[in-house]
Amino acid sequence: MFVGMDHVGVAVKNLDEAISVYRDILGFKLLGVHVLTERKVKVAFLSTGGETEIELLEPLGSESPVAKFLENRGEGIHHIAVKVDDIEKTLEELKRRGVILVDEKPSAGAEGKKIAFIHPKSTRGVLLELVME
Amino acid sequence: MFVGMDHVGVAVKNLDEAISVYRDILGFKLLGVHVLTERKVKVAFLSTGGETEIELLEPLGSESPVAKFLENRGEGIHHIAVKVDDIEKTLEELKRRGVILVDEKPSAGAEGKKIAFIHPKSTRGVLLELVME
Repeated sequence: MFVGMDHVGVAVKNLDEAISVYRDILGFKLLGVHVLTERKVKVAFLSTGGETEIELLEPLGSESPVAKFLENRGEGIHHIAVKVDDIEKTLEELKRRGVILVDEKPSAGAEGKKIAFIHPKSTRGVLLELVME
Repeated sequence: MFVGMDHVGVAVKNLDEAISVYRDILGFKLLGVHVLTERKVKVAFLSTGGETEIELLEPLGSESPVAKFLENRGEGIHHIAVKVDDIEKTLEELKRRGVILVDEKPSAGAEGKKIAFIHPKSTRGVLLELVME
């Protein structure tokens, strides 16, 4: 079912400033920037040199879920995204096991990937994203 | 300098219960459990099917840094650990660039790895661990 970790999401107030920190000071390589209007976020992906990337997320507007996260907890790690080989089957199976899903059906993420979120109530406080390429 | 992501740490109140959730319900494979007396944590590593693992951390005693995290923020994602090829050189270079280090020198982590932490003030709120095998 799981085939690796795709990325870890970090909520930030200002994407350009955060890119500057992660790329120019910490030394991670910037892979790309995407504006996800429907999800109300602007994101940047950075390489760690391996399969799992770091995704910086800036909210687009005060209605963005990331804006609410920043208000409640401040900047920091927002979610973990794991790769699955079959996202529909995984969601079905997790639901059958009593896991609380944020999304019953997958939707479109960055770079044409299919994504869905699992509720932190079922994961010891972790917002867990499923990603299928 | 960076050669991948080693693991993501998740702070939990009860390791056995959290293992049960991550292994038996979510379906991640349990790799091993370690008691790190000096670091005042009991940890479990789970495979995501790729290079980056999930580390569940239960505090050993109220003086554990993880106990303080749980008190302030509750259960959830605690840190990101990235792999480096030369931990001493990386710490030196990051310090030269003005990055605030929690550990100026690496110490012993699980499975004989060398580890050191970077302060969240220099990473937009992310507790970032460096790991060298």
